[in-house]
Amino acid sequence: MNGSLPIVRDVAALRAAAAAWRAGGKSVALVPTMGALHEGHLSLIRAAKARCERVVASLFVNPRQFAPQEDFDRYPRNEAGDAALLASAGCDLLFAPDRAAMYPDGFATSVIVANVSTPLEGEFRPHFFAGVATVVTKLLVQCSPDAAFFGEKDYQQLLVIRRLARDLDIPVEIVGCETVREPDGLAMSSRNAYLAPAQRAIAVELSLALKQAAAAIRAGRPIAETETDMRARLAAAGFDAVDYAAACDAETLAPMADLSRPGRLLVAAWIGKTRLIDNWPV
Amino acid sequence: MNGSLPIVRDVAALRAAAAAWRAGGKSVALVPTMGALHEGHLSLIRAAKARCERVVASLFVNPRQFAPQEDFDRYPRNEAGDAALLASAGCDLLFAPDRAAMYPDGFATSVIVANVSTPLEGEFRPHFFAGVATVVTKLLVQCSPDAAFFGEKDYQQLLVIRRLARDLDIPVEIVGCETVREPDGLAMSSRNAYLAPAQRAIAVELSLALKQAAAAIRAGRPIAETETDMRARLAAAGFDAVDYAAACDAETLAPMADLSRPGRLLVAAWIGKTRLIDNWPV
Repeated sequence: MNGSLPIVRDVAALRAAAAAWRAGGKSVALVPTMGALHEGHLSLIRAAKARCERVVASLFVNPRQFAPQEDFDRYPRNEAGDAALLASAGCDLLFAPDRAAMYPDGFATSVIVANVSTPLEGEFRPHFFAGVATVVTKLLVQCSPDAAFFGEKDYQQLLVIRRLARDLDIPVEIVGCETVREPDGLAMSSRNAYLAPAQRAIAVELSLALKQAAAAIRAGRPIAETETDMRARLAAAGFDAVDYAAACDAETLAPMADLSRPGRLLVAAWIGKTRLIDNWPV
Repeated sequence: MNGSLPIVRDVAALRAAAAAWRAGGKSVALVPTMGALHEGHLSLIRAAKARCERVVASLFVNPRQFAPQEDFDRYPRNEAGDAALLASAGCDLLFAPDRAAMYPDGFATSVIVANVSTPLEGEFRPHFFAGVATVVTKLLVQCSPDAAFFGEKDYQQLLVIRRLARDLDIPVEIVGCETVREPDGLAMSSRNAYLAPAQRAIAVELSLALKQAAAAIRAGRPIAETETDMRARLAAAGFDAVDYAAACDAETLAPMADLSRPGRLLVAAWIGKTRLIDNWPV
């Protein structure tokens, strides 16, 4: 039972635990995860613990955000290891529902966010944000946290979640936390585990290309050319395909026009069967 | 200020009022309305008051559930009169937000319910249930009532709302209340106000056709023929068009196969520019 971390598997037990904390005057944070935890997740737990008195992590590999050909089946799973890591980072409760607890027979509801979910990931993984928005809405309603924590690694996802929480009036603060990186700059991701050593050496170029492009735009290189540069650098480094390498408005994800508003560079690229994403402010 | 009924217009004030009641141990009911109140709505308020200690009514003519060619602009509005009626029925608070309070700039989120929202109204008003599901989700999250009350007059809507509340884990009891009818059987509806006297005389046939069809099915007349009978009776009575006249499974709204499961007859038909709906158990 992973040392001291209590685990609940149904919504009623989650709700009871969170309600008891609130009745005792404790603030509650939620950190949604799909498990396969790394230092990026643990930084979210620590940020949550710094902000709230009690921290709930959820672990649910959400089938609705994977397309049939994607890696749902091989997505790494290690609940016992994850629970030990969560406990070490200060988590107070793990909510680990099974599929039937989240999507009982007859389940038929989707939460759809327009606009900010349309480009980039929305173009290449058209099922993705409906799956994310629906499960996150459920988790927020199930747990009623004061604050919920998400990594900027999934930058577009963070914008989608901010939007749905505001639009559906869910009384929660959505907190975005900076991407945690390996010493060489690679953004931590559960999917990095798929990379063979030679692929891992290629993967580092993702963050390096972003960093270089951000510097180039700030130095005056035209935005469209910088996007082309990023693609070229990734291809030259050994990426097999680039889904997108885009400079966007940091809030709306519309194409970035100039430096008058905060921008965000976002990339998604493939090494073999592994798809990696990353992003960088500009 | 309509006698004694307090009115709030923003979500924060609604939330504060409901939270104060809950902190005082009072249960809270919500009765969502679009105003133009009649005895059907007041019966919901009374049912809510019988079940909960405090009753909130909302009044919001939701633009997202009207198509451009529909009657949003001419939908009857009389807030002062509605507030007086609500107070007389035991309502404790009216939540009457304006459009910007419900759909601020940048609003982009929709709640979509599949399956039960697809046939009938879903076919003839394809925008309708996304609008209803989104606004009801918002109202339930805004108010966090113990129970919310809806009329069976909008039978398919009631099923959609039950589904979304269950699927999104909103901790509320959805209570369906029996349709209130005029002495001759016409279901009460805010849209009955559109009917000229000659049209009003035609309108009564809606409930009579349903009642007759339910009796016929119970007496063994084949279901498909009963549906044809309903259409024929409505056309003969003077209805200008029948969108649907269907016998459905009372829970799934799939076509009714036989009498082994509860059924529901549902009709939508036009008199001039006025569209009326009604339904009946079988």
